[in-house]
Amino acid sequence: MSEKIEQTNRTKLRRIPKRGSFDRENIYKILDEAFICHVGFIVENQPFVIPTAYARSDENLLIHGSAASRMMREMSKGIDICVTVTLLDGLVLARSAFHHSMNYRSVVIFGTAKLVKNEAEKHEALRLFTEHIIPNRWEEIRAPNSKELKGTTVLKLEINEASAKIRTGDPIDDDEDYELNIWAGVIPLKIEAGKPIDDKKLPKGIKPPNYALNYSRD
Amino acid sequence: MSEKIEQTNRTKLRRIPKRGSFDRENIYKILDEAFICHVGFIVENQPFVIPTAYARSDENLLIHGSAASRMMREMSKGIDICVTVTLLDGLVLARSAFHHSMNYRSVVIFGTAKLVKNEAEKHEALRLFTEHIIPNRWEEIRAPNSKELKGTTVLKLEINEASAKIRTGDPIDDDEDYELNIWAGVIPLKIEAGKPIDDKKLPKGIKPPNYALNYSRD
Repeated sequence: MSEKIEQTNRTKLRRIPKRGSFDRENIYKILDEAFICHVGFIVENQPFVIPTAYARSDENLLIHGSAASRMMREMSKGIDICVTVTLLDGLVLARSAFHHSMNYRSVVIFGTAKLVKNEAEKHEALRLFTEHIIPNRWEEIRAPNSKELKGTTVLKLEINEASAKIRTGDPIDDDEDYELNIWAGVIPLKIEAGKPIDDKKLPKGIKPPNYALNYSRD
Repeated sequence: MSEKIEQTNRTKLRRIPKRGSFDRENIYKILDEAFICHVGFIVENQPFVIPTAYARSDENLLIHGSAASRMMREMSKGIDICVTVTLLDGLVLARSAFHHSMNYRSVVIFGTAKLVKNEAEKHEALRLFTEHIIPNRWEEIRAPNSKELKGTTVLKLEINEASAKIRTGDPIDDDEDYELNIWAGVIPLKIEAGKPIDDKKLPKGIKPPNYALNYSRD
């Protein structure tokens, strides 16, 4: 059985708690499928929400950015942050306007991020960012040099205070509405990859690799 | 020419400002194509980031939720919030690990939300939420009754302090890396709809409408 994460006052689900999960395996599955997280942090009493790429290294979420980025600079001070990852799986069309919904899987993580200073650890983090987005590419590309490593800030956030929220399946209508002559059901949604587009500066004869031609998140 | 939104200290783009846009038309296009926003707010010095559906009514962003939701209750107090909408358009595969990127379009809006109290305005907001997600459905479904309207909190946020950030096109590699024998380019990504799935309780003979069969965000 997968380990459960302990609930805290911040992660306790107040609304529709039956959709919640504190199961580490469920949380990791969502984090490993999605690409983008939305990072929330406070500067001078103002909340900011910034989309960014991420990777996971065991029980840590990794975020990176330019050493010149305000977000990275603020977060490396050890402030409280909230990282949210959302996958949209479908539109839930009910018979009543009120019960329209979406199928989704989301994860919310609270904590304070730590600066990754060790150069080998930083290098490994950059490998994980690439591997998270496109497996098998790392071994083909030019590895980061020490100037690039210096220009990149990597932060890690322990996945210790986290919850998942998941809605699946059919709409739930009021009993009397099931008799209405209205179609109801789910339109499934998925991120699909198109045909790879060559860089305009690509020399003739270099073909897209299979991991790009057959790209999928499944 | 489309109206420009004035920059403020909060919306000023510090990183790669050439990717920024303060053009109302660009901002609206992104808001109208996406589904989900991530709302950031502060409760007791802790940032929260919550994914939720939204709609746009002219220069207002509308958010709704259960009257019992903590997020809606906190936000209706007129606190500072930050709403971010992100569309992921592609994976940008460079020759160097360092220059890997994503093509995206995002909008960040700052402000304080106002509670929509007027019942007619609230009803119209609910119509816009449905129309935003699935055009043409509203006229077929059971409209919200007054109990449902009471149970729904609608907030509106003026789109006055907002910016868009957009990355498009090819990877940008270091000059000397263009000679490397590595494929580079973009894998386009898009949210695609699958075949509608009937509600298990749907009576025989009710077929999915065309707007569900041909669903697309284009």
